[in-house]
Amino acid sequence: MTDNAARPGEMELIARYFAPLAAHKGARGLKDDAAGITPPEGHELVVTTDTLIAGVHFFGNEPAETLAAKALRVNLSDLTAKGAAPIGYLLSLSLQADWTQAWLADFVKGLAGDQERYGWSLLGGDTTKTPGPLTITVTAIGSLPAGDYVARDTARAGDRIYVTGTIGDAATGYMLLKDDKRAGDLGLENDAPVLMSLYLAPRPPVAVIAPLRAHARAAMDISDGLAGDCEKMCAASSVSAVIEASRVPLSKPLQRAVAARPDWLETAITGGDDYQVLAAVPPDKAAAFEKDAAAAGVAVTSIGQFGQGGDCAVTVLGLDGEPMSLTHKSYSHF
Amino acid sequence: MTDNAARPGEMELIARYFAPLAAHKGARGLKDDAAGITPPEGHELVVTTDTLIAGVHFFGNEPAETLAAKALRVNLSDLTAKGAAPIGYLLSLSLQADWTQAWLADFVKGLAGDQERYGWSLLGGDTTKTPGPLTITVTAIGSLPAGDYVARDTARAGDRIYVTGTIGDAATGYMLLKDDKRAGDLGLENDAPVLMSLYLAPRPPVAVIAPLRAHARAAMDISDGLAGDCEKMCAASSVSAVIEASRVPLSKPLQRAVAARPDWLETAITGGDDYQVLAAVPPDKAAAFEKDAAAAGVAVTSIGQFGQGGDCAVTVLGLDGEPMSLTHKSYSHF
Repeated sequence: MTDNAARPGEMELIARYFAPLAAHKGARGLKDDAAGITPPEGHELVVTTDTLIAGVHFFGNEPAETLAAKALRVNLSDLTAKGAAPIGYLLSLSLQADWTQAWLADFVKGLAGDQERYGWSLLGGDTTKTPGPLTITVTAIGSLPAGDYVARDTARAGDRIYVTGTIGDAATGYMLLKDDKRAGDLGLENDAPVLMSLYLAPRPPVAVIAPLRAHARAAMDISDGLAGDCEKMCAASSVSAVIEASRVPLSKPLQRAVAARPDWLETAITGGDDYQVLAAVPPDKAAAFEKDAAAAGVAVTSIGQFGQGGDCAVTVLGLDGEPMSLTHKSYSHF
Repeated sequence: MTDNAARPGEMELIARYFAPLAAHKGARGLKDDAAGITPPEGHELVVTTDTLIAGVHFFGNEPAETLAAKALRVNLSDLTAKGAAPIGYLLSLSLQADWTQAWLADFVKGLAGDQERYGWSLLGGDTTKTPGPLTITVTAIGSLPAGDYVARDTARAGDRIYVTGTIGDAATGYMLLKDDKRAGDLGLENDAPVLMSLYLAPRPPVAVIAPLRAHARAAMDISDGLAGDCEKMCAASSVSAVIEASRVPLSKPLQRAVAARPDWLETAITGGDDYQVLAAVPPDKAAAFEKDAAAAGVAVTSIGQFGQGGDCAVTVLGLDGEPMSLTHKSYSHF
């Protein structure tokens, strides 16, 4: 390829494509092998990492810009659920031999767009070639007032179960991307592009960060499926949970899909890729949580309640009020 | 494989193999999607990341324990050169479908050994399967007193060029691993195992961290080759450099190799994988740097001097005092 004939070496590639993204002072324009970060006075840092591999975590034919957004946002989602505001990220990008500058320019455009949207910066990284599939590891760093970390293992019996946004859109978008003929069955002909876009690039509810810190007892992001992730929170916190499916917030398209195919509710509740937040909120803080979230522009919905431990199980009550029998409670990439 | 029949899922794998490594309180026993870190009072954090891919950065048939050490130490090397003491690391491990528990147990043993040796802790990570080669990304986090970061771009004309330890051992070990018949030519029959082990698992000179912070003006680790890495420091700092090959510290085996094959000096100076530190030390601090390094048990050797910028070139004077003509100044994996 003509494009490849003039491809830059690693140093030039960093200078040309990545250095302009290194807005954070501690990144030193990517002229060093490391970055320095000082958390704001009285704050602690929160770190998390997620890897995306072509053919495992994404299709591989996504637009590079979208893929960049996804790689950042699956990590931003974890920071959000912990109550941490994003500061910056490290990017390890393992490219296949046939990478092109056009692809990389688009990928960088996606990173730049997300840096502006969420107010964070590239801090450093590593660019390598791989004989395997395109592999993207992002390590995200955020901060919060020391001691305000919202953990997964601190839910208590009696806490209300909240979710942000709507559930099941991305899982449905994924199904439609795999087989667009399904849109007809589900009455989603017109909604497919939006649902697909929510799978391709999730939108973590960053505005809920402050309300979470102020009012939630525990939280985690919903990445593998609402029912299964809730079960993980139960296991970590030694509690059980009852979720009422009728209260799980569904977008208009999902409401239509469930009306057309009642079993689609199970897909919504177990499909994953929501990147919304699941939170445990004490009853006496529920009103304040709802009020602060609304003021911040984030929809939050109470969908059930945590109970005494026992087997740490999650019961999902179906629309008929009877426990649903879920084939898989969540999706596992591993 | 029998071993694989009973392989655990991701959650169980984390609990069984990785949670025991999460000694740091902020890692929350790996029961969460993120970790919290508060730098010591008055300190800043330093972050860096490096990816190792089978067939690119390592052979793929190394013992898992050694590979774990290498993945940590190439990152520890960056922290060391910045003057940062290690705190913890995040590990993204992308395993092939045929991974075994025996391999993983050895890998974890390697991580545990290095945690004890260097005093740091697993903080979090991500375990995925990959259809490509085994891929290991480590993001390392260290700390230093705020403002004490030892940068790459701050060397000045007149500063002395120092290196820690000896140069060329790992590059020679790599050559011997690729072709062990070479040991005879180089008179290294008895030394091959030691040299190979230095390639397989480098030993970053962590004891030089405090002397570096106290006395060095600039530093970086030597990963791609002394001459080329020195050139990178020159470019970042807008200086030039003259290195005297006769002063480059060589181990006894390397001295023998160079005696047998004078051109091996070039391999030593450009081969890379040393994971020693290259430092710029002002002349008036040189004596104190040497004294403090000696007290800390690290050999440091002055091998030349930085000069006025010009073309930011590195001149290596050979044993005859004439500039050496180097084919490649460093190795690039990209």
